[in-house]
Amino acid sequence: MLNHVTDTMASEKILDLNAFDMTSKVGLSEAAQDLIARRQRTFGPTSMLFYRRPIHVVRGEGAYLYGPDGEQYLDAYNNVPSVGHSNPRVAEAVARQLTVLNTNTRYLYDSIYTYAENLLATFPDDLSNIVFTCTGSESIDLALRIARNVTGQRGFIATDNAYHGNTTSATEISPSSANAEPPNPAIVFVASPDTYRRPHGEAESQFAADVDAAIATLKSRGFGLAGFIADSIFSSDGVYPGASGFLKSILEIVHHAGGMYIADEVQPGFGRTGDAMWGFMRHGITPDIVVMGKPMGNGYPIGATVVRPDLLDKFGKQSGYFNTFGGTPVAAAAGQAVLDCIKADRLQDNARDTGRYLKAEIEKLAAIHTEIGDVRGMGLYLGVEFVKKSGAKIADKNKALAVVNGMRERNVLIGTAGKSGNILKIRPPLCFNKTDADTLVNAMRGALSDA
Amino acid sequence: MLNHVTDTMASEKILDLNAFDMTSKVGLSEAAQDLIARRQRTFGPTSMLFYRRPIHVVRGEGAYLYGPDGEQYLDAYNNVPSVGHSNPRVAEAVARQLTVLNTNTRYLYDSIYTYAENLLATFPDDLSNIVFTCTGSESIDLALRIARNVTGQRGFIATDNAYHGNTTSATEISPSSANAEPPNPAIVFVASPDTYRRPHGEAESQFAADVDAAIATLKSRGFGLAGFIADSIFSSDGVYPGASGFLKSILEIVHHAGGMYIADEVQPGFGRTGDAMWGFMRHGITPDIVVMGKPMGNGYPIGATVVRPDLLDKFGKQSGYFNTFGGTPVAAAAGQAVLDCIKADRLQDNARDTGRYLKAEIEKLAAIHTEIGDVRGMGLYLGVEFVKKSGAKIADKNKALAVVNGMRERNVLIGTAGKSGNILKIRPPLCFNKTDADTLVNAMRGALSDA
Repeated sequence: MLNHVTDTMASEKILDLNAFDMTSKVGLSEAAQDLIARRQRTFGPTSMLFYRRPIHVVRGEGAYLYGPDGEQYLDAYNNVPSVGHSNPRVAEAVARQLTVLNTNTRYLYDSIYTYAENLLATFPDDLSNIVFTCTGSESIDLALRIARNVTGQRGFIATDNAYHGNTTSATEISPSSANAEPPNPAIVFVASPDTYRRPHGEAESQFAADVDAAIATLKSRGFGLAGFIADSIFSSDGVYPGASGFLKSILEIVHHAGGMYIADEVQPGFGRTGDAMWGFMRHGITPDIVVMGKPMGNGYPIGATVVRPDLLDKFGKQSGYFNTFGGTPVAAAAGQAVLDCIKADRLQDNARDTGRYLKAEIEKLAAIHTEIGDVRGMGLYLGVEFVKKSGAKIADKNKALAVVNGMRERNVLIGTAGKSGNILKIRPPLCFNKTDADTLVNAMRGALSDA
Repeated sequence: MLNHVTDTMASEKILDLNAFDMTSKVGLSEAAQDLIARRQRTFGPTSMLFYRRPIHVVRGEGAYLYGPDGEQYLDAYNNVPSVGHSNPRVAEAVARQLTVLNTNTRYLYDSIYTYAENLLATFPDDLSNIVFTCTGSESIDLALRIARNVTGQRGFIATDNAYHGNTTSATEISPSSANAEPPNPAIVFVASPDTYRRPHGEAESQFAADVDAAIATLKSRGFGLAGFIADSIFSSDGVYPGASGFLKSILEIVHHAGGMYIADEVQPGFGRTGDAMWGFMRHGITPDIVVMGKPMGNGYPIGATVVRPDLLDKFGKQSGYFNTFGGTPVAAAAGQAVLDCIKADRLQDNARDTGRYLKAEIEKLAAIHTEIGDVRGMGLYLGVEFVKKSGAKIADKNKALAVVNGMRERNVLIGTAGKSGNILKIRPPLCFNKTDADTLVNAMRGALSDA
């Protein structure tokens, strides 16, 4: 069934990632080797571990993970424990609720409505309905179902190295995932707005032109536009925040073609971009559908699809949707505790201030190390792009991988992003402080000297 | 986009269910009315509540749910809290782990392998790999991806009132869900083995013949067979356990056509059928892929896809799959605690013994009330079919709904199943005991006298 090209693409995708070579034993303790053997027997050999030398963890606290011998790792990669690893407020809220009631939304209980009201209060007025799910993938999949249903169309536009989830439908719009299934002709991909290789303004205009062209392509293939989906900083594409406000023109193009604007807030949402609770707000737009997941319960599995009531009403009259674990009292407790932490600990402000500081410090490194071609991002979501020293802006994946692994050896955890895998993705818990930022920059400096 | 027929079907589907009429206020407390108003504002008016008079719950314990004024409801419907509402062992395990470590499987930690080993030990040797997810829907969706990938085909066969989940792909194989999207021609449905309307043996043979014909239909439409999917007691179809062993011939037919046999164990799994840990075991078969969810974490969101290693290896080399919340240390803690409870409290034995007792008691009622046409099931999963008194085995949905609501007024919770909505679905937590069974039968007797 599979031709050689597809096979190669899959392998390339997997190599692009910061993956452990399962046959390697270099520098691994006996305990780690034993865990890897047990992993291979149960998860199979294709299940990916991070790093040339994988991390064995036994404990987490705040922005830190700890190994069995007390090794301390600064976590600058994981956006899920957004209010901190093992956050006590979240742990207590979940623990308490588990001893009282955990059932589903076919029955009445008040905490889920309180949480829904508090969460919806952070959205523009038009986005006043919510469907709870368990994961970002389920939320995206539902958003696609709603968009197809309300428009009566099947075409979608996404970016060409996006990641939006792991279901069949979500994978179709996630070209960053290796996928052996034949491409769906109803989905067209556009390049993200690369403000490193084009000037600001031009990159964003090109993006708008590409979306326009994608709509024409869908039409030529006999499809109408059901929706456009992107996160506002193009995370997996390589972190391209673009000029604030530029997504307004995209929303207009999408609406003009009769499509839904779906904002994937799984990565930028919950204050990470520092300027607002939701990434789309920086662009002054109100999407039709907003999708969230990862940090929503700080690791307790919750997701949600927030939607205009007229759309949900139309969908709900024609299609059934029920999510057993979505919106349980325990999910409400976890979600509410996260909202409370973000507010009490002023984490959005911290994302803005610490993010700005960290970006400036990395820019200082870039002034010395010309292999850092670009430093960009918003709040505590930064991209650092590695290029060959020629000045021609040619992606250098090996350098990026060497820095990621060099930083891992210095106990600082980050990852890579981008089609060429040459961009560092820095996305720490939101409790990350300036001392942590210094630790990260020192480790990067060290890794750069080695690499 | 939607024609009248589709619209009507969706409404019929929704009416078939045991749904609250959102405009009704009959018999509702002010507190309940207030909750319903808040629900409508946040979840929208199409989100379904059970019962003519919805249940307001504030606490759960064992097989019981409790209302705000101390009302005690016997829960004979919810299969998720399989080891009991608010089970202390599960609550403590999750609470403890939340304060220590909750991260993802890109890092090494031992508890998830221990849990995977313990869970896989309950399977036939050939089923030795596992992928953790968060829900049954995600697990099904992944099973479909694997089946398509390893066979290179797109056709699936499922039963004609099945429910397998809520993603786009899972909904396509779930005709019990209202779905406005156009039917996928690569999916063919067969009627479940109705041993009430045909003698044992004939019903099962007819089912095999229908699967054979469905394969021919797929071929005639230009599709090969990727897989057959069913749960072993055809839960949403109306609980049809069939003769033990009859699925062996189905597996042979499916394999002969090159397809994968996917066992959906979300409902029968984890000891519910009383005779074995997994429903498929009663049939002496080894499926290619097994899917689980709901009771796996007793309400903590966990699911899994268990699969032959050769299939997972082929899939994993060509397609990426990662599930952020799947297989975290907290998920492992919840799952392990559930396995421990099933063993320590001998819940599989209880499902067998209490289930047998409950079935016999309901059969006594059926001897008096001829509107009960059939009582069937395995362990603590029973179906009670209501028919018109004519003796012609004509489905009586209204009677079933009246009994469900009459039992609710007597504080016993059950639901309906089946294409005609005329079958009571009795599926309590596995800690349900004989006293609980008597309570259920007394409530059913009372509801039957009223109905």
